[in-house]
Amino acid sequence: MQKTAEQMAREHREISISQFFEKNRHLLGYDNKIKALLTIVREAVDNALDATEEARILPDIYVKIEELEKEKYKIVVKDNGPGITVKQIPNIFGKLLYGSKFHRLKQSRGQQGIGISGCVLYCQITTGEPTKIITSTGKGKTHKVLLSIDVKKNEPKILKDEVIEDAEKWHGVQITFVAEGIYREHKQSVLEYLKQVAISNPYANIVFDSPNGRIEFARGVEELPKEPKEIKPHLYGVEVGIMTRMLEETKARSLAGFLTSEFSRVGKQSAEEICRKAGVDPQIMPRKLEHQDVVNIVKAIKEVKLTRPPTDCLSPLGSGFIESGLRKELNPEFVAVVSRSPEVYRGWPFQVEVGIAYGGSITEPAVMRFANRVPLLYQAGDCAITKAVTEIEWKRYGVAGSKLPEDPVVIFVHLASVWVPFNSEAKESIANYPIIIKEIKLALQECARKLASYLSGVRRAAAIKEKKSIFERYAEETATAIAELTGEDKEKIRNKIIEIVNERWSEVTDEANGEEAPLAETPTEEMNGNGGEENGRENE
Amino acid sequence: MQKTAEQMAREHREISISQFFEKNRHLLGYDNKIKALLTIVREAVDNALDATEEARILPDIYVKIEELEKEKYKIVVKDNGPGITVKQIPNIFGKLLYGSKFHRLKQSRGQQGIGISGCVLYCQITTGEPTKIITSTGKGKTHKVLLSIDVKKNEPKILKDEVIEDAEKWHGVQITFVAEGIYREHKQSVLEYLKQVAISNPYANIVFDSPNGRIEFARGVEELPKEPKEIKPHLYGVEVGIMTRMLEETKARSLAGFLTSEFSRVGKQSAEEICRKAGVDPQIMPRKLEHQDVVNIVKAIKEVKLTRPPTDCLSPLGSGFIESGLRKELNPEFVAVVSRSPEVYRGWPFQVEVGIAYGGSITEPAVMRFANRVPLLYQAGDCAITKAVTEIEWKRYGVAGSKLPEDPVVIFVHLASVWVPFNSEAKESIANYPIIIKEIKLALQECARKLASYLSGVRRAAAIKEKKSIFERYAEETATAIAELTGEDKEKIRNKIIEIVNERWSEVTDEANGEEAPLAETPTEEMNGNGGEENGRENE
Repeated sequence: MQKTAEQMAREHREISISQFFEKNRHLLGYDNKIKALLTIVREAVDNALDATEEARILPDIYVKIEELEKEKYKIVVKDNGPGITVKQIPNIFGKLLYGSKFHRLKQSRGQQGIGISGCVLYCQITTGEPTKIITSTGKGKTHKVLLSIDVKKNEPKILKDEVIEDAEKWHGVQITFVAEGIYREHKQSVLEYLKQVAISNPYANIVFDSPNGRIEFARGVEELPKEPKEIKPHLYGVEVGIMTRMLEETKARSLAGFLTSEFSRVGKQSAEEICRKAGVDPQIMPRKLEHQDVVNIVKAIKEVKLTRPPTDCLSPLGSGFIESGLRKELNPEFVAVVSRSPEVYRGWPFQVEVGIAYGGSITEPAVMRFANRVPLLYQAGDCAITKAVTEIEWKRYGVAGSKLPEDPVVIFVHLASVWVPFNSEAKESIANYPIIIKEIKLALQECARKLASYLSGVRRAAAIKEKKSIFERYAEETATAIAELTGEDKEKIRNKIIEIVNERWSEVTDEANGEEAPLAETPTEEMNGNGGEENGRENE
Repeated sequence: MQKTAEQMAREHREISISQFFEKNRHLLGYDNKIKALLTIVREAVDNALDATEEARILPDIYVKIEELEKEKYKIVVKDNGPGITVKQIPNIFGKLLYGSKFHRLKQSRGQQGIGISGCVLYCQITTGEPTKIITSTGKGKTHKVLLSIDVKKNEPKILKDEVIEDAEKWHGVQITFVAEGIYREHKQSVLEYLKQVAISNPYANIVFDSPNGRIEFARGVEELPKEPKEIKPHLYGVEVGIMTRMLEETKARSLAGFLTSEFSRVGKQSAEEICRKAGVDPQIMPRKLEHQDVVNIVKAIKEVKLTRPPTDCLSPLGSGFIESGLRKELNPEFVAVVSRSPEVYRGWPFQVEVGIAYGGSITEPAVMRFANRVPLLYQAGDCAITKAVTEIEWKRYGVAGSKLPEDPVVIFVHLASVWVPFNSEAKESIANYPIIIKEIKLALQECARKLASYLSGVRRAAAIKEKKSIFERYAEETATAIAELTGEDKEKIRNKIIEIVNERWSEVTDEANGEEAPLAETPTEEMNGNGGEENGRENE
C-alpha cells in the first residue's frame, strides 16, 4: 500500500521514556534473568552507599534474595542512611529521569536518575508486582509506600501509603522488589558484585542472605573516605550550545560576572582576557549577546590558559588501599600500584588508579574494572579499560599473552570521575574517550614496568641457581679427574671449585637484581587544557 | 558536610530526555568528530529510505558534506519521498522520543524516535546553529522551517517558518545541518557507509558530493523490495506487566475477544484453551480481571501451542541478491549464501541471512554487519554478529584463524526484524540474545561447510597436481635407467610411465572432488515457541 505524507503524519506519536525502556530494557541491564537480579541489587546498593556517604554515616547494608517460585524472586535491600522524605518517594521510584545527581558535578555512583525507577519498571513488566518502599528520616515516623509506574505518562502510581509510629527512630530505606530472575553464583553474579563492592568500599558492612545461606562482608575500615565536593563546570568543556543556554539562564548582570561566577577557576583577569580575545565588552548583559559573540567567546576560551578544575570533587581509592585490598583478597607474591594525577575530559575531572597483582594464590588472569567504586561485571568487550589493557604489549614486560595476559596476573583498574561516560544506561562499561584510555595505559605501563623488573630478577635468579647447581653437581667428578691427573689432594680441589663457582655466581646475581627495567612504550605525557579531546573517541 | 534527608530532597529534579542526551551524546553516536558526521548522514539517509519505501517511490538520495571552516561542516541530505506535513515538522525534528515507528511492529530502519532530533541536538550543542528543513508533499507549497530544541522542555523552538509556491510540485525532504566534525574516508566513514548502503539497497540511487568530489552509486535494480506488513504482537512475547496494561486499554468486551483481536495468530479455539488452562471465564470483561488472573493467563499461554507470527512483516534481502552483491563488489573466487527461516525472540519475528565470499580480489578478512538493511560500522566488539562469528571453529572449515578468520574471507550477515535489539540508542551493534546468536551461527556453519567443501577440493587438487608433476619430471630419468637395465626401448618405457601416472592420479582427483564435507558442529535445530528465550542473553 502506497502511503501519503498525510497518512504517515497520523502515525506519529510521542513516546514516554518509560515506554522506551519497557521495550528496550536490555539497555538498563535487564537482558537476561541472571543479570536482572544483579542489576536490581546493584542499583539499590549503589544508592544506599551514595546516601550513607553523603550523610556521613558508616554504611550497614543488608541484601536478601529469596526464591518465591521458579524464576520469581523477592529482593530486599536495606540501609541505615538518612532516609527519603515522603514527598520525594513517588518521583524517585516511580518516574524515570528524576534525581539529584544528574545536575551536579561531584563523584557519585548514581548519576542518571534512571536506575532505581528502572528496577520498579522491570518488576512490574515481568511479574506485574508493585515495589514496596519503607523509609524513615529518623524522626519517629516510618512511611510504607507501595507503587508502580504509569508507563504511558512516566508518572508514579501510588497503590498504598501508610505511616507507622516508630519509637526507636530508625532511619534508612528498605526496598522490596518482586522480579523474574535466575539466581546463580558465577563470575558475573550478585555474589561476585558484593565481593568486589567489599574490596572497593571497605568501610561498608554488608550482610547478604542468599538463597544458599548467609554471607557477611565485615567492615574493614572504621572511617569514611574524604567527602568529594561539588564543583562548577570548567570552561574547557563548554561548547557553543551549552554556553548559549547558560547565558540565557544566568542571573549574572555582566559577561565577566557570568564567567567568574558560573565556572570554576575563572578569575577576573582570565574573564577579561577571554572577552578581549573574543572582541566582546566584559560589561555587556549576558542576554544581549548575539550568536556570533558566543561562537567567538568559545573560540577565545581555547586560546586562554586556565587553571585545571579543582580535584576535591573526586574520591579516589588511594594506592595503599588498593595494595592492601589486592594482598588481602588474592594473596599474590607481587603487587604494584599506580595512581595517576587527575586529568580532564570535556571539562570534567577524572583520575585513574591501577593495581597489578602477580603469582602466589592467583591461578588465572583477570581484569577487575571499577567506576566510582562500583564493580563493572558486564560489557567488557567495549570498555575503555579493556581497550587499554589489550593495547599493552604484555610480552615486553615478561608477561605471556598477545592481547590480555595469559600468566596469573590480576589487573585492577579504577576510574573516578564527576561524570563517568558509560556505554549505555546500564552503566556496565566506560566509553572509549582517548584521554581516558591514554591515562589508563600510562598507569598500566608504569605498573607493568615494576612487574617486569620483579619478574626479570626472579627469572634471572632462577636461571643462575639452575646453572650453579649443575656446576656443583659436577664439582665432585671434576675434582676426582683433576686429582688423578695432577696428583693433588682431591678434597682441596673440590673445595676450590665450589669456592670459585660461588664467587662467580654471586656477582652475577647482584647484577641481575640491579638490572634496569625495560623502557616504557610511550613514556612522554602530553598535557593540555582540552585533555586531548579534540579527536574524540577512537575508532574500534 | 553531613546532609539530612531534607537537604537531599531539595536537590532532586526532573531530567528532560534532551538534557540527558545532551550530556550523554556518545550514546547517540556522537562520541567523536569523525563519527558525528557519519551519524548525522546515517540518521537522515535511513529516514529518507524508510519514507520513500513506505510511499513506494524508488529512492533518489542526495548527500553533500561541505567544510565551512576547520572542523565545522554543512551537511545536506535530500530525498524524493512523500514529504512531511507542516504540522509534524516541529515534533519530528525538535523533540526527542517522537515518531511513527516505535509503536508499530513492522521492519524499518528507524524505530526509536530519537535519531533525527538527536542530529538537531548535536548541531545545536556544538555549533549553536539551528537546523533547516525544506519539505513539500507535492501539492505546490514548499515549507522552509528553521528550528532548534528547547533542551530543558524537550520541545521544538521554531525560529523561522515560510511557505514558497512551487509550480513544479516537488515532493520530498531536504535537511541542512551545521555541525562540528572531521571528514575522513577510512573504514568507518560516511563513504564506507554509503558504499554498504548501496550494496544492501540496490534500488536506491545515491549521489554524494564529498569534500573530495562527487561519488555516484547508481541504482542497480529498478524495483522496490516487497513491502513489509505491520503485524500485531504475538502472545509468546507478552509478559505480565504488558498484558496488564493492554487489558486496561482494550476496547474488547470479553477476554476471549481481547486475545483474538489484539494478538496475531490467536483463533477462538486457542483463546478458549488459554482461558480454560488459566481457570478464567473467556467471557469476563477484561477490566474485571484480578492480578492473579493475569499471572495465570500468562502462565497458561506458555502451555498452549500457537502458530508462529506471520513473517510478511519482514523484508529480507534474499539469497540471490546477497550473492550478486558480493560477486559484484568483491570479485571473489567463491561465494556461499544461506537464508534461515524466520525465528522469534520475545514474540518478535526476525530472520538471518549470511553470505561468505572467499579469495579472488579479496585480500583481507572482514565482517560486514547489517540490521534492517542498515550497515553497522561501530561497536563490533559487543555485537551478536561478532559473537556468533568468533564462536565458529574456523579451522574445522579449512579457514585459518582462531576467533575471526585470518584467510581472505568476507562474511556478510544481515538481521531483519520488526524490532532489532540494539546495544545502545546509537544503533551500532545488536544485543546478545541467544536465539539471535544461535540463528547466525547456524547460518554461518552452513555457509562454512560449503566453503570447506570447496576449499578441500581445491587444496586436494593442488596437492595432486604437485605430485603428478614430480612423477612426470622424473619419468625421463627413470625411463633411461630402466632402458639401460632391461635393454627395452627408452621412449616406450617413458610413455608407459606417464600413462600410468595419468591414470592413477585422475582416479584420485575424482575421489577428491566427491569427498564428503566435514560435519557441522551442531547440526540439530531446536525450535520452540518461546524461541529459547528462557535464559535470556548469554554472559560475556
